[in-house]
Amino acid sequence: MRTAIFGQGYVASILAAGLQRIKEGEIGYEGIPLAEHIPESIEEIELVRAFDIDERKVGRRLSDIVSWYWNGGISFENDYTVKRGYRQPQRSSGEGGEEMLNGAMADTGLEEVVWRLVEEYERDEVEVFINLTTTENVQPFHDATELERAIRENRYDRVSASQLYFYSVTQYDKPSAFINCIPAQIANDPACVELAKRNSCVVFGDDGASGATPLTADILEHMRQRSRRVLCISQFNIGGNTDFLSLMEPERNLAKETTKSSIVHDILGYEVPHYIKPTGYLMPLGDKKFVAMHIPYISFNGAEDELTITARINDSPALAGMLVDLIRLAKIAIERGEYGTVYPINAFYMKMPGPRDAKAIPKVFAFELVRSWIGYGSIDIGDGEREKGGGTDGGEPEVSN
Amino acid sequence: MRTAIFGQGYVASILAAGLQRIKEGEIGYEGIPLAEHIPESIEEIELVRAFDIDERKVGRRLSDIVSWYWNGGISFENDYTVKRGYRQPQRSSGEGGEEMLNGAMADTGLEEVVWRLVEEYERDEVEVFINLTTTENVQPFHDATELERAIRENRYDRVSASQLYFYSVTQYDKPSAFINCIPAQIANDPACVELAKRNSCVVFGDDGASGATPLTADILEHMRQRSRRVLCISQFNIGGNTDFLSLMEPERNLAKETTKSSIVHDILGYEVPHYIKPTGYLMPLGDKKFVAMHIPYISFNGAEDELTITARINDSPALAGMLVDLIRLAKIAIERGEYGTVYPINAFYMKMPGPRDAKAIPKVFAFELVRSWIGYGSIDIGDGEREKGGGTDGGEPEVSN
Amino acid sequence: MRTAIFGQGYVASILAAGLQRIKEGEIGYEGIPLAEHIPESIEEIELVRAFDIDERKVGRRLSDIVSWYWNGGISFENDYTVKRGYRQPQRSSGEGGEEMLNGAMADTGLEEVVWRLVEEYERDEVEVFINLTTTENVQPFHDATELERAIRENRYDRVSASQLYFYSVTQYDKPSAFINCIPAQIANDPACVELAKRNSCVVFGDDGASGATPLTADILEHMRQRSRRVLCISQFNIGGNTDFLSLMEPERNLAKETTKSSIVHDILGYEVPHYIKPTGYLMPLGDKKFVAMHIPYISFNGAEDELTITARINDSPALAGMLVDLIRLAKIAIERGEYGTVYPINAFYMKMPGPRDAKAIPKVFAFELVRSWIGYGSIDIGDGEREKGGGTDGGEPEVSN
Amino acid sequence: MRTAIFGQGYVASILAAGLQRIKEGEIGYEGIPLAEHIPESIEEIELVRAFDIDERKVGRRLSDIVSWYWNGGISFENDYTVKRGYRQPQRSSGEGGEEMLNGAMADTGLEEVVWRLVEEYERDEVEVFINLTTTENVQPFHDATELERAIRENRYDRVSASQLYFYSVTQYDKPSAFINCIPAQIANDPACVELAKRNSCVVFGDDGASGATPLTADILEHMRQRSRRVLCISQFNIGGNTDFLSLMEPERNLAKETTKSSIVHDILGYEVPHYIKPTGYLMPLGDKKFVAMHIPYISFNGAEDELTITARINDSPALAGMLVDLIRLAKIAIERGEYGTVYPINAFYMKMPGPRDAKAIPKVFAFELVRSWIGYGSIDIGDGEREKGGGTDGGEPEVSN
Repeated sequence: MRTAIFGQGYVASILAAGLQRIKEGEIGYEGIPLAEHIPESIEEIELVRAFDIDERKVGRRLSDIVSWYWNGGISFENDYTVKRGYRQPQRSSGEGGEEMLNGAMADTGLEEVVWRLVEEYERDEVEVFINLTTTENVQPFHDATELERAIRENRYDRVSASQLYFYSVTQYDKPSAFINCIPAQIANDPACVELAKRNSCVVFGDDGASGATPLTADILEHMRQRSRRVLCISQFNIGGNTDFLSLMEPERNLAKETTKSSIVHDILGYEVPHYIKPTGYLMPLGDKKFVAMHIPYISFNGAEDELTITARINDSPALAGMLVDLIRLAKIAIERGEYGTVYPINAFYMKMPGPRDAKAIPKVFAFELVRSWIGYGSIDIGDGEREKGGGTDGGEPEVSN
Repeated sequence: MRTAIFGQGYVASILAAGLQRIKEGEIGYEGIPLAEHIPESIEEIELVRAFDIDERKVGRRLSDIVSWYWNGGISFENDYTVKRGYRQPQRSSGEGGEEMLNGAMADTGLEEVVWRLVEEYERDEVEVFINLTTTENVQPFHDATELERAIRENRYDRVSASQLYFYSVTQYDKPSAFINCIPAQIANDPACVELAKRNSCVVFGDDGASGATPLTADILEHMRQRSRRVLCISQFNIGGNTDFLSLMEPERNLAKETTKSSIVHDILGYEVPHYIKPTGYLMPLGDKKFVAMHIPYISFNGAEDELTITARINDSPALAGMLVDLIRLAKIAIERGEYGTVYPINAFYMKMPGPRDAKAIPKVFAFELVRSWIGYGSIDIGDGEREKGGGTDGGEPEVSN
Repeated sequence: MRTAIFGQGYVASILAAGLQRIKEGEIGYEGIPLAEHIPESIEEIELVRAFDIDERKVGRRLSDIVSWYWNGGISFENDYTVKRGYRQPQRSSGEGGEEMLNGAMADTGLEEVVWRLVEEYERDEVEVFINLTTTENVQPFHDATELERAIRENRYDRVSASQLYFYSVTQYDKPSAFINCIPAQIANDPACVELAKRNSCVVFGDDGASGATPLTADILEHMRQRSRRVLCISQFNIGGNTDFLSLMEPERNLAKETTKSSIVHDILGYEVPHYIKPTGYLMPLGDKKFVAMHIPYISFNGAEDELTITARINDSPALAGMLVDLIRLAKIAIERGEYGTVYPINAFYMKMPGPRDAKAIPKVFAFELVRSWIGYGSIDIGDGEREKGGGTDGGEPEVSN
Repeated sequence: MRTAIFGQGYVASILAAGLQRIKEGEIGYEGIPLAEHIPESIEEIELVRAFDIDERKVGRRLSDIVSWYWNGGISFENDYTVKRGYRQPQRSSGEGGEEMLNGAMADTGLEEVVWRLVEEYERDEVEVFINLTTTENVQPFHDATELERAIRENRYDRVSASQLYFYSVTQYDKPSAFINCIPAQIANDPACVELAKRNSCVVFGDDGASGATPLTADILEHMRQRSRRVLCISQFNIGGNTDFLSLMEPERNLAKETTKSSIVHDILGYEVPHYIKPTGYLMPLGDKKFVAMHIPYISFNGAEDELTITARINDSPALAGMLVDLIRLAKIAIERGEYGTVYPINAFYMKMPGPRDAKAIPKVFAFELVRSWIGYGSIDIGDGEREKGGGTDGGEPEVSN
């Protein structure tokens, strides 16, 4: 599975380090949800290229960049060079008052950018693409022709980096997959899903469900099953990686907030006042964020209970571990020809599972959907002799591809 | 549903108060897992009798005793009088060195005790019995004839209060149900299950799954689904009700510990060092216990994360709310003639679900088992348009009784 | 001690309820730091008047308003009527584009407002004034003549409600005290302190030190004494009273943030990245806020430890309890003629202790300063036979007034 | 300062590693409370010998043993060999039913053991001794002659390892110091203090105040100063070092519990139900224990608040950092001829500060006692221009030795 990455930051670097260490037998399959339960082997994943817009990274070797994020000393099978990606030009005012666009490629047509990228994909024979660019507030297009027109008309202000990358992948001849891990609407934009279907492209998205939100979802389901009436929910997150830094910009934070809040009503079935959002940036916390959650609720006979959760969670490994599954599931989807987006995969791995209007369901059930999609048959929990899951049973999936 | 209770303590009193307040429209269905999803109506539950061995309670009105635990001022539809229950005599040494048995009924034959109880049941036309006596360390009999012999031979030292109560219910002509909420093996004792089957009795048990353990189970499942390797688990509980007081006696605590620890291996599928047990007694906490839980784990690329949960939980309402379901489910089981024990019910509502050797499964799945048993059909989580659960949808179950 | 209050909100209402219940022997001295260690008796505090700008409160009885905040059913010794206070007019644009001022008294000269207020004070023979108005972002005047000029020139836009109330108290003939509990600079404004000195007025302020910040201060001192290097500090607060609601307005929140952050450098002596501020508003939490704090630090040999604190704290009682001390300490200061501001009092009871440039010190030491100011002599901790403090020893202070 | 250690375990090894790294400029003074505020230089501390009874350690180099506890790769200035210490023989029954004593030196007279040890001290010219042996339940002697007689009469069963080590130090000619960091009564045994005075020996003890208890003490003082009525206190500790393992033996745990509980009444001045003790052993936690604390309390007007603290604390570095101070303070005490025990030192650094009947005071005040004892004059906190403390001010102490 030849894989390319947009955004060679923390997650991409940890993914590269972890995969290499697994291949060398240094670590096990911890943090990879389905581990050996996916027929495709982890060892066959190859990271072949990354694109980035940070000048310090462009032209640099993977091993150099990984050493900025992880100091384990490692040498890579394929120590690729990072290539220049697409930076959406920013609007500003020129001297004479006229509007100007600044950006690496403001003077290049968008279609030229796309062609250049596609050439790279062809050269590297990429099969799976992962979007790990910085969070951005993306306006969905809804209609595929709108997206196509915006590209054609060089609407720099309208086409975000994620949308351009996605579009470029659909223009690439080889059937391939685009895994969108950031809170930009791709799998949730009917325009993108339509384009994907037409052009033999699989889309997984949006916004990788690592972090505290999946835990919140499962805990809310626990409450719902007991008819406990949740009074309100606080969920604070503070960290020191660039994600938190960029989320401090109000516009980006807005994108994140929308994603996270939808789970409350989707799961509980009623409205609950809540405060769920990245709260601040503290550099010394680095990639290991601090999370605090508070959930007071009413139990039988009007009794008031409360639950408080605090956690230290390494952000990047949590997402990187999921990518090890997603790359392999993407490969299977391509082989099955399931183009467009695949809800059962998104439901477990994404915070805002596409397609548009799909609901967030408790991850605990979504997990079974994934297993069922792979071919493990329907959920089998009824006999008290339940099959051991994730990582322990050797049962063969009923896959027939 | 005419219901009798063994042990008129905190839980029984909160159950009585809550049911009465629901009937008067004062409170809603909070804390009752299946609320209106069970065809039998909550309003039709009638508490008609309780048995206790505390001399301050015997002969007293329900309303008097409830006021010791809950100061809301309430008048009961059926303000029954508590009758004397069975106290297992305790062994001690007499003056002359010979062994003696002390206890309210040491001079009465066990069969006489049983007859006296059965007469009461008949007079009150009881259908459902709930065991809420103090935690005790019970030796299972395994073979029904052994239990019968022990009764016949007046083995006071061998037959615990729970076992005697259970036996008495099986000797009662009317098809009925015995719900065992304490950590004594009844539904886990093949002897009891066999007797129940032979005598038209439904048994639910053992050890009501309120409290922190079901939450732990669901969180461990969350970990398992992500292949996070749990390093160890601490779970401290401290409270001020008689349950905690009695658990401080080492022998009783042992009974509790066994129940709680089994969940770790059952869910994760591997051994994890853990400390999960009631930790102490602090009177001022009353019925609202303090729980602290700590779970460090390994994520992808060897990253170490950790989760800490603290909670204040009202113990008695949590169990009482479940009883509102269990009484109604018992009624259904009786009507269906499902005598013996019913795993799908036990799996969700009990910490140590019978029959013997049945596994603890995550409560989040067990919940679906219950719904399926009631007649809501198989789990339907796959279309992203998932039916709203517990307490919110008005869908009719596919029951045909 | 005849006391008047600006702002009949949560704190003022809980103060009234608590004082009345103490007088009736219903509750003890919990939450009153110095309790019977101040020679002035708690029972002699009289609340005689409140001023407010909320139309629902003006003209209403104290007992009515208290019932909005506390449902205990109480009748007051002096069930005063709330009078109209001063609302600073807000700037807006008129139809013709000209600037306009809106507000209850935009057409009244500021000196007239002051005279009207002073007349009320005289009628009620007030001795102590407490400022409990809504948080506002106040610009200090620095020079007393500037403040006087702003009043004279009707600078509605420049003179905040707190400043006007303070000024009115200095224009009142009777020696009196102004206790500023909100995060507006009064005791920290040299202009106000000078005016106070000239006009026989005692000022305590600014920003009552209830809530989580004093605890943070004491914990940081604990770290400093062990040379633990604090890496960063997160402190989240979320609540449902009007304080949190108003702090969500960015301008007001700014005032609060300044107050809280100064403690870190003042106590530790070095800069630490921190995030300490009111984080959100969740109505169901009401007056009982949720606080989460996280402090990672380096110990000996480079070991990294971490401390996490979560709390549920009733905001209003915490401040109201301190007011019971402050009113009595104000009385003593007036009797001693200590006009201007009194650092030893501010150091313990205030988050931003005046005068300007005074440092925040750990509250644990500030407490001893208060005791020493009262007349309990110097700190006596050295003999291992230490006097029992707060509320338990009957030792007479060495006061000679 | 030539220092010898009884018990080459975790703390001794971390102490050795940390001191070496400080000398090499690799780390700073984090975790050393008084750091450069003690005139004696940290760099002059020399660890010259350790005694242990673990056969795997006897005869081994320091560097070997340190590598079992800390994997940093380090080479020591003085890479001493561990010598055999004293193991108190354990009583058991011989074949013929007669009582027997087993132990390394059961056949050697106690005075011979002492002489052998003293010879070692002389050879190494030791000045300061640190007791870091395993927790043991020691019976104090109260009278010095009783201790001497027990030694003379070879009362193996009566003289614990700590008591024997302490006695041996008093028999050593050179004026020296014995720092008792374990929960055995030495500084709290009048017999030991008397012997120390007579034989030019300084004793600091008992039970090093690292861990969660000093924090609890300071938080309780915070409560006391605000007259908050503490309802109860839970403090759970769980860890994976040998300390926790040994504390699981009920007898040893008892020793620990006594130490910790005394602080509650000493500080608050009233009785509070509490549960404060090492709760369990979980190997994977290693030296970094998990602590959970819960403190509900009553505030003004009967409001109920609560505080929950959880922490991850590296046990050994916390104590090792304090030892860096204690060794230097011991040197000063020897030079000043302050033989016997020194309360101002014990009050801050020890959980059960000697002499017997001395009170536990909040550590925050005890810290000032230490500074005052060193010569920094009386506590100076009153001017709002407070001197910066621990580690930041360069002020010279008023020492004149």
